[in-house]
Amino acid sequence: MNSQVAVKSVPDTAVSERDMANAIRALAMDCVQKANSGHPGMPMGMADVATVLFNRFINLEPSSPHWPDRDRFVLSAGHGSMLQYALHYLLGYPDMPIEQLQRFRQLGSRTAGHPEHGHALGIETTTGPLGQGISTAVGMALAERMLAARHGADLVDHFTYVIAGDGCLQEGISHEAIDLAGHLGLGKLIVFWDDNSISIDGPTSLSTSMDQPKRFNAAGWHVQSVDGHDAEAVATAIETARQSARPSLIACKTVIGMGAPNLGGSEKTHGAPLGEAEIAATRQNIGWPHQPFDVPEEILLAWREVAERGSEARRTWEKRLAVSPQRRAFERAIAGKLPDAVFEALADFRKEHVEKATKVATRKASEMALGAINGATDLTVGGSADLTHSNLTITKGMNRVAPSDFAGSYVHYGIREHGMAAAMNGIALHGGFIPYGGTFLCFADYARGAMRLSALMRQRVIYVMTHDSIGLGEDGPTHQPVEHLAMLRATPNLNVLRPADIVETAECWELALKAEDRPTVLVLSRQNLPMLRLAHTDENRSARGGYLLREPAGHRAVTLIATGSEVEIAVAAAEKLQSEHGLAAAVVSMPCWELFEEQDADYRRAILGSAPRVAVEAAARLGWDRWIGDNGAFVGMTGFGASAPAPDLYRHFNITPDAVADAARRLII
Amino acid sequence: MNSQVAVKSVPDTAVSERDMANAIRALAMDCVQKANSGHPGMPMGMADVATVLFNRFINLEPSSPHWPDRDRFVLSAGHGSMLQYALHYLLGYPDMPIEQLQRFRQLGSRTAGHPEHGHALGIETTTGPLGQGISTAVGMALAERMLAARHGADLVDHFTYVIAGDGCLQEGISHEAIDLAGHLGLGKLIVFWDDNSISIDGPTSLSTSMDQPKRFNAAGWHVQSVDGHDAEAVATAIETARQSARPSLIACKTVIGMGAPNLGGSEKTHGAPLGEAEIAATRQNIGWPHQPFDVPEEILLAWREVAERGSEARRTWEKRLAVSPQRRAFERAIAGKLPDAVFEALADFRKEHVEKATKVATRKASEMALGAINGATDLTVGGSADLTHSNLTITKGMNRVAPSDFAGSYVHYGIREHGMAAAMNGIALHGGFIPYGGTFLCFADYARGAMRLSALMRQRVIYVMTHDSIGLGEDGPTHQPVEHLAMLRATPNLNVLRPADIVETAECWELALKAEDRPTVLVLSRQNLPMLRLAHTDENRSARGGYLLREPAGHRAVTLIATGSEVEIAVAAAEKLQSEHGLAAAVVSMPCWELFEEQDADYRRAILGSAPRVAVEAAARLGWDRWIGDNGAFVGMTGFGASAPAPDLYRHFNITPDAVADAARRLII
Repeated sequence: MNSQVAVKSVPDTAVSERDMANAIRALAMDCVQKANSGHPGMPMGMADVATVLFNRFINLEPSSPHWPDRDRFVLSAGHGSMLQYALHYLLGYPDMPIEQLQRFRQLGSRTAGHPEHGHALGIETTTGPLGQGISTAVGMALAERMLAARHGADLVDHFTYVIAGDGCLQEGISHEAIDLAGHLGLGKLIVFWDDNSISIDGPTSLSTSMDQPKRFNAAGWHVQSVDGHDAEAVATAIETARQSARPSLIACKTVIGMGAPNLGGSEKTHGAPLGEAEIAATRQNIGWPHQPFDVPEEILLAWREVAERGSEARRTWEKRLAVSPQRRAFERAIAGKLPDAVFEALADFRKEHVEKATKVATRKASEMALGAINGATDLTVGGSADLTHSNLTITKGMNRVAPSDFAGSYVHYGIREHGMAAAMNGIALHGGFIPYGGTFLCFADYARGAMRLSALMRQRVIYVMTHDSIGLGEDGPTHQPVEHLAMLRATPNLNVLRPADIVETAECWELALKAEDRPTVLVLSRQNLPMLRLAHTDENRSARGGYLLREPAGHRAVTLIATGSEVEIAVAAAEKLQSEHGLAAAVVSMPCWELFEEQDADYRRAILGSAPRVAVEAAARLGWDRWIGDNGAFVGMTGFGASAPAPDLYRHFNITPDAVADAARRLII
Repeated sequence: MNSQVAVKSVPDTAVSERDMANAIRALAMDCVQKANSGHPGMPMGMADVATVLFNRFINLEPSSPHWPDRDRFVLSAGHGSMLQYALHYLLGYPDMPIEQLQRFRQLGSRTAGHPEHGHALGIETTTGPLGQGISTAVGMALAERMLAARHGADLVDHFTYVIAGDGCLQEGISHEAIDLAGHLGLGKLIVFWDDNSISIDGPTSLSTSMDQPKRFNAAGWHVQSVDGHDAEAVATAIETARQSARPSLIACKTVIGMGAPNLGGSEKTHGAPLGEAEIAATRQNIGWPHQPFDVPEEILLAWREVAERGSEARRTWEKRLAVSPQRRAFERAIAGKLPDAVFEALADFRKEHVEKATKVATRKASEMALGAINGATDLTVGGSADLTHSNLTITKGMNRVAPSDFAGSYVHYGIREHGMAAAMNGIALHGGFIPYGGTFLCFADYARGAMRLSALMRQRVIYVMTHDSIGLGEDGPTHQPVEHLAMLRATPNLNVLRPADIVETAECWELALKAEDRPTVLVLSRQNLPMLRLAHTDENRSARGGYLLREPAGHRAVTLIATGSEVEIAVAAAEKLQSEHGLAAAVVSMPCWELFEEQDADYRRAILGSAPRVAVEAAARLGWDRWIGDNGAFVGMTGFGASAPAPDLYRHFNITPDAVADAARRLII
């Protein structure tokens, strides 16, 4: 177990930890100066803390950056990216030679302005938007405990370390994260607060009077306060924190830009180069006579030695893994490979419900499909932001994850959409699980910051967002999404799936599970919807994004395009056009714009047809012109919703078969 | 001063406060039952607290619901809307007869599912999305103190009362709000926490272990804990809270669904009707033999008497106002009427900079325009979420609002975008000020929940969102908006203004200030932009949303459409097309889609023309097909951004004059 590995004692070589920390300082100020852009203050201020953490405690091996039981390090204060890049260079990550640091913030370099997961080895998560790192780390620490509960402490027993700044702790998401972590008792989560009393506008006293230690204590955390430039004090605090059964905050009093004689302690070091003169003065002040980007051999060697501890830990772990009866299950979990049984169960499910012509809300269909999925795999981790029985995200036999009891697979995330989304990112990044979590579609607003990172990092996180339109009825406009589909569809790397019936819902779940390189939002109705897919197909028709649900009876006079709950309306309009006006209407169900966009032009043309087109969706028009074209019509929302029973609202907003048929006739005539 | 008005002593009539509270309980359960939809648990649980607050303390007059110095009441736990509607009926609000309660949650009624500002008198803010009410109330309480600092306690001295539930306190936004309120010392803000230990999924112990009193105490609040069904204890706590110089939390231990013999205390009372049987049992249990919607005369009279205290307070306030030297200034502030001098200053500003051909970033242009605005009015309240010198939102002579010092006009909102947006809603709703606040456009994500409410409530809140594209450069994809323009443009009632140069920036500020019934987002560049409007016009050309910036030289071969920083690119492309290919290109600057959409079809046709169209915007394509049509082309982003200097990024993503000219030529040929 990593936590049992003896920590490195204070080095007695000629190279001091202060020298090692100064290497970070020098690299940070020199790289920012060369780029003429960046944030030197935080890396210089936290260099001592980071040196103690990496030199004496953390178990990482640069040559095995994906070793599953490595400690996780999250730089929540992502603007201090030079701290991470400097560490990676000093530790010897193979993809981080000095040339990368010299190309800090340049096109194509691995040293992006903020740490980007996937750009360089060892960046566990993308940070920069404040508060995300600490909240994502909660998910990592949770995944660690859950994986340990399944596969044993022999295979899973590592720490998650976070460096967070004042910004991270002021952001609301931090409240959601620390409450959840404190509640669950994530004792292997250790957060260093860079308590430098400076934010961008100036002293933090401009905008906050929060007693952070007391605040974390109220959330059930173990709290210590130290001088962040006193290595022994930091080390002692880390040792104490590692013994705590509660998550730990170590408040580190630091000086931003530590070492800069004139600018240290000032917000001027936060986000701008120090300037040549101050850099020269800093070199003198900290006793660093070396040239820019030049780290003396003995200091570099001292840093490279750090990896030895991680290597040893990894090797002993490999031995344990080799003889573990859990080996295959663990490796399958880490690979995130779902058993075929999941997809067989979904295929059977579709066949069964086509036969039964099951008429349920798509949120209910989702629950039923989840029953099939969760019955066939234990990789899924469900949850909801306190809407479990509205989102219908829990299935039979799922036990809750409870304080200090991580055997369950369902997380009551609380009324914390943003924290949930970030935690799911952390679970996905950690590996071992496929997280899904529910809220109302409207409250995607609250989760946006973290959802965007799911997409940017291409993580398989599945958002189950129900109550997806005015169809939710009486709760009214604050709960009725209008602009949300546009918001999500405009987001790169994100599949937005809005199924029309139980069959499409099962297909969409299959697509979500198979989309290993991107998050998915399942957009589901509160209200019941009829079965529209009358015949079973082995093919997952939703996989094309859009398809002909109803062929026109004869020459196509008009094409009706719809998603989700409005496909029923399009079908009814088509029947009306045929029976009352003898007009042949094709109906296109388009559950996923992104996948439809990926089809070749011929397929898209064949589906959309050359006849006039009417789209119907109980949402904003924005984006639909792409599919309806210059002469098309749109039936949908033109403003916010209202509070009333759903059928009244559809009539009130004129989203009805009559309205669609009328729009079609106006186009044809 | 209201706070000096003697509070009502405990009534000695036959009607007890318990009877008065039971009227709320009965109305809540009966209305929800009749609607077959709604949330009876919270109104029943908080009926006693609300009765004490309204019966003994609050200064409101139903017949003068807009009286400026009334106390503000915010139902942050908005799902408990029946508490508010019951109170409004009982207090005698003229627009809330019993028939409205009988039409709870029906189309066109004033009794929407959640309290909607503007639907019924006395609803100070729209609530429902959790955490918004308490955070908006912080803005109201701040506006109250700021207005008092300007016009004196004779005219402004009222309390802001909030009822918040567990959900409000779990949401991250509450952290931002209580930290800001505690920091500023908003002593006249009093929050009742409905501490019923129940949320939707079940007991709150499923998801939180937060020590809320300790948490609020850490944020600098005065905290008390009482039995929420003990009227005297509640009253004593309110009296104590009113004396505190700090904002107050009164934790009220309550039973959700109090009075229901079988369901009381259970999450089953949260969001569903109790059912006929349980309602009958509740009637018996609480001693309420009356028919549904029938409140006995003496109980109704007791409630109607409450307004007397408010009436008296209002009358004495009117007398003070009549003789106050501040009267005119105060009335102008409350009316939100800007002096003509503001618009004259902006007109002069435009003329001056056309002559100077000033080349600045639009964020800088915004700062300069703000200098003119803030020099001509004291109605504006500026601020930023800790990006003051990036957003450029502070102007010469602005002093900061500091703890217990409210004479300033600039708020350091801290690293709290969501809290800032909600506070600005509260400032606007309170009246007396026009709030504007800055952050990076990308962090509109964090503020979304409250921005949507700005739009839903049609409040004049001005968002200054800078660093609006890959043009921000090195900070990379986490900071580079791509989907945000689509997200904002899809939002109803919201003007999204993206000016191209200093003249358009001044025009856009004028539009934002004049848009009294909606929020505005000013979308501004980090990078310098040339002056493109070469001739001064008295007309505000941006007011049309889109206009011909460059007439084609001859027959129009192509139309290039752009916004903001990409207008420069379109102009350069047009020049290239002319000089290198002899093609006449019109350039349309389209700073505001919403305003362009409002123009008549002839104008729109004339501007867009019948020639092929190319749009260029460094953002997602979604929505642009509306303007470019079936045969148009779009030059912009197809995924997330990257970290590099801005010019490199424009080249890398191929958003250049060459790319636009090439796209145009492909369309023409």
